Amino acid sequence: MAYDPNDESRIEGRNAVLEALKAGRAIDKVYIARDDGDRALGFIAAKARAAGAAVSSVDRRKLDFMSSTHAHQGVIAVAAAREYSTVADILALAEERGEAPLIIICDEITDPHNLGAIIRTAEVAGAHGVIIPRHRSSGVTAVVEKTSAGAVEHMLIAKVANLPSAMDELKAAGVWIYGTAAEGSSELWKTDMTGSMALVIGSEGEGMGRLVSEKCDFLVSIPMFGKVNSLNASAAAAVVMFEAVRQRHSR
Amino acid sequence: MAYDPNDESRIEGRNAVLEALKAGRAIDKVYIARDDGDRALGFIAAKARAAGAAVSSVDRRKLDFMSSTHAHQGVIAVAAAREYSTVADILALAEERGEAPLIIICDEITDPHNLGAIIRTAEVAGAHGVIIPRHRSSGVTAVVEKTSAGAVEHMLIAKVANLPSAMDELKAAGVWIYGTAAEGSSELWKTDMTGSMALVIGSEGEGMGRLVSEKCDFLVSIPMFGKVNSLNASAAAAVVMFEAVRQRHSR
Repeated sequence: MAYDPNDESRIEGRNAVLEALKAGRAIDKVYIARDDGDRALGFIAAKARAAGAAVSSVDRRKLDFMSSTHAHQGVIAVAAAREYSTVADILALAEERGEAPLIIICDEITDPHNLGAIIRTAEVAGAHGVIIPRHRSSGVTAVVEKTSAGAVEHMLIAKVANLPSAMDELKAAGVWIYGTAAEGSSELWKTDMTGSMALVIGSEGEGMGRLVSEKCDFLVSIPMFGKVNSLNASAAAAVVMFEAVRQRHSR
Repeated sequence: MAYDPNDESRIEGRNAVLEALKAGRAIDKVYIARDDGDRALGFIAAKARAAGAAVSSVDRRKLDFMSSTHAHQGVIAVAAAREYSTVADILALAEERGEAPLIIICDEITDPHNLGAIIRTAEVAGAHGVIIPRHRSSGVTAVVEKTSAGAVEHMLIAKVANLPSAMDELKAAGVWIYGTAAEGSSELWKTDMTGSMALVIGSEGEGMGRLVSEKCDFLVSIPMFGKVNSLNASAAAAVVMFEAVRQRHSR
């Protein structure tokens, strides 16, 4: 149980573990701090046992040692390896719900806090899935899980070898690809986002990669009125996603 | 130069230090990593000298020791103590710009990353100022400065002893107070936010304090469509601020 920040099977923190149990994710083992008569921890232990997980009471220092988030709140779960979805699964979910696809593509979001925040916002906005690249991206680690407040358990996440190919697959299915860019593009509020849509969120420092950028059907700019001329990746994602949702709900 | 995470005079990281210099903040001293012929660091050193700061080349390990953000990128500046603004300053700026006030009130945002992200988004959205309480809130520390990408240097920030009194002062000046709440409130997209407005952002776990909540003229809810029924504080702030800005610009 040594520390591995890239481990995707570890889930840390009360909300994150509860959301994983609620979502029916296969949990092998749950480690719970032994020290206190904390009712919330007792509740999680009961839920975990009911779901068939082995529950182990351990010293809080052991949890500190195991933790990669440094905010385990007295509980760490070890889950079966994460099963990723496919782009086809995401499209099928939109169809099943009878909604125009709303899909988020994360292009080289390497900061797990940013990735977790984007996935959380996407889940709250009712998006159908998130696509991340296999390389040069944070995986869905314990930090992502925790930052997402457990949203990763309710969201279809596809991990693809090649983003441009995934974008071609979306285009072939009639999905328009929107990227965000600082200039030379369509103002957010004047851009129609009511149809089938995949939104690319680029990394903060670099923006979108060139190949990814060239695949976009629309480049959208968020109007900015200050001296600091950029939003962080997760704030930009929140603003564009909720504008898309606003347009869809005010039709 | 021992580590003090509450120190508000320390500025860390390339962007943050450059923004502070650009904004004309009084910098006493700049410590720069000696090890490399890094041109960006050389550029910062030149700018700092031109602004009258003493520049000191130090071992990178010394910067690591001084750093509270753990991401100093080879540069730490020591500035004169931060001068906070007043609520009256913020109202005067809006009047000077001939705009309806757009003010952000942070109610017990204790996480400096959240506070920095909110200030950055507020600056980009063209808000006139941010109000934070003196107690039970992060101050404007190096982490806040860095997370804000230097936006704190361009934003009027008022630190007040008592938020409800500050809210009374705003009301007396004809500013409506908007809070965010999960239920029993007006849907974001149906709420008119084109007038004089102060927006309260509550802490993530607790929401707004009771006294603060009771002072709100409007409670606004962000429509949510997922299973995770909340956005994080900075994402919620981004969504509401940019909806207010959208309304103002599409009148």
